[in-house]
Amino acid sequence: MVKDIPIPKPGPGEVLVRIEAAPVNPTDLAGIQRVKRNDFVPFTPGREGAGTVVTAGKGLLPWLWMGKRVSCSSAHGHGGTWAEFMVTGAANCFPLGKKVSTEQGSMSIVNPLTALGFIEIAKKGGHKAMINNAAGSALGRMINLLCRKNNITLINIVRNAEKATHLRNVGLEYVLNSSDPDFPEQLSAMAEELDARLLFDSVCGEDFTTLANALPFGSTIIIYGNLSPEDHVSIDPRKVLLRDLSIKGFYLGNVTKKQGILKNMRNLIKVRQLMSSDLKITVRARFPLEEVQKAIDIYLSDMSAGKVILTP
Amino acid sequence: MVKDIPIPKPGPGEVLVRIEAAPVNPTDLAGIQRVKRNDFVPFTPGREGAGTVVTAGKGLLPWLWMGKRVSCSSAHGHGGTWAEFMVTGAANCFPLGKKVSTEQGSMSIVNPLTALGFIEIAKKGGHKAMINNAAGSALGRMINLLCRKNNITLINIVRNAEKATHLRNVGLEYVLNSSDPDFPEQLSAMAEELDARLLFDSVCGEDFTTLANALPFGSTIIIYGNLSPEDHVSIDPRKVLLRDLSIKGFYLGNVTKKQGILKNMRNLIKVRQLMSSDLKITVRARFPLEEVQKAIDIYLSDMSAGKVILTP
Repeated sequence: MVKDIPIPKPGPGEVLVRIEAAPVNPTDLAGIQRVKRNDFVPFTPGREGAGTVVTAGKGLLPWLWMGKRVSCSSAHGHGGTWAEFMVTGAANCFPLGKKVSTEQGSMSIVNPLTALGFIEIAKKGGHKAMINNAAGSALGRMINLLCRKNNITLINIVRNAEKATHLRNVGLEYVLNSSDPDFPEQLSAMAEELDARLLFDSVCGEDFTTLANALPFGSTIIIYGNLSPEDHVSIDPRKVLLRDLSIKGFYLGNVTKKQGILKNMRNLIKVRQLMSSDLKITVRARFPLEEVQKAIDIYLSDMSAGKVILTP
Repeated sequence: MVKDIPIPKPGPGEVLVRIEAAPVNPTDLAGIQRVKRNDFVPFTPGREGAGTVVTAGKGLLPWLWMGKRVSCSSAHGHGGTWAEFMVTGAANCFPLGKKVSTEQGSMSIVNPLTALGFIEIAKKGGHKAMINNAAGSALGRMINLLCRKNNITLINIVRNAEKATHLRNVGLEYVLNSSDPDFPEQLSAMAEELDARLLFDSVCGEDFTTLANALPFGSTIIIYGNLSPEDHVSIDPRKVLLRDLSIKGFYLGNVTKKQGILKNMRNLIKVRQLMSSDLKITVRARFPLEEVQKAIDIYLSDMSAGKVILTP
């Protein structure tokens, strides 16, 4: 449901952005489901978007960004990007260069920085191969691209045969379908062969235990989302200790906070360069805010067919 | 049930030890329960013990240990120490110096090396404080001793008020009773105050989630046992990622394998020095193998009152 609410005012270090484009991301939908279940309404979804900074709070960065076209992500305690206006920390904004459209810019934070973060984790851990669950998404494509650029072999897990065929058709070598009855054995054999001991899981559904048990000795699971409706995953403590398993979290907000603004800027510049060439994201449809339900329905009808963009 | 079985023969790199003393450890009892549930009988329990090497398989180490009084741990695929004779890898044996009795020596592998391993994990991670669950045990005492020696603050968690009072009476400063109704708040406040972001959990029971949620942001849980009858613990993926939680396993067999024989020897020498002074373990009762059930019952009646030793 779309509602009119007062335009918020930016505090110190914050800016008010007039949102011009905001994608529908899986994380937004999971957030909406959660809010619905827990009755936290009203709230404004939307982790990322792009637009123009129209009011600046106190501080150097807000002043620098004032009037600029920026990509931006939402801040804890404020509404999201699925709105005409959003207040967020100036540090959550990054000016868009001339080569990047507002639409492409609106998708240039969450997914690209997440994909870059994964590559850094793999490199730091000395991994030559890794595994991604929910591989059919836009993020999945970015991870594939960055893995190729960094000589890391990637095993792609998707949920059905159609998606698996699609990924094989676009040239991906290692694709597994988690609906296959012998999926655990397939994953186990492939991961062992490629020495893939690093799994990124954004689903955390009921097959979490299956995935964990299929990984080679000494593996690490990075949890970066909870797209599944389940609120909990189950782990066998003896498997964790006997098979030397590690489970860690990856939350972009925490990661960018930890690595500091300079590192974030460097990463965003890297993303901009990629986005003007290889990393261009396919847009499937555009909808005004009023048609948000239609936008979500279209997106959900095939989450791998391209992004759906809201244009407030 | 005690049975007569043929004396096993050591293969290459292995030795046959005539067991003279073997403690009842919590891990043994958990193993027995698990075997009972899963009907893996017959099997011989016992993770560690001490005795004399009476037959040597092929290899340098078996030859070196031949005829020596050694402490020893059981090897995967062989029976345990609750027996008159045990075959194990020579690398699982360590000769006992004159100052260490066979009885003390029988308890000188699992617990001391585990405690040393924990201190190493804390030091590597730059932790000035850590938390131990099931703190009333012999291992708990060792961890306290080693923490004191290494200037690491330790929060001790026990299951009831009696044990908590006992630990406070012996001079421990930070003791929590997990049966207190406000235990989660107590743990949360104390861990925050002391910046304790490293929890060692050998229980992995139904309160695992409570413990995980009470820890400060960026904490690590090391699972090193599963004393609880539960086969699974439940984690909330969003908590893992939002609160930057890590979960890892510690299994002594894996750790000693990874760090190699030289490091293990150095650690065992360290343990020997400690055992001839501070680290002496109280023995509560001794039983022949035939009375193993009685030994277990006595031990279970109060697991913190001292070790119970089997004398095959």
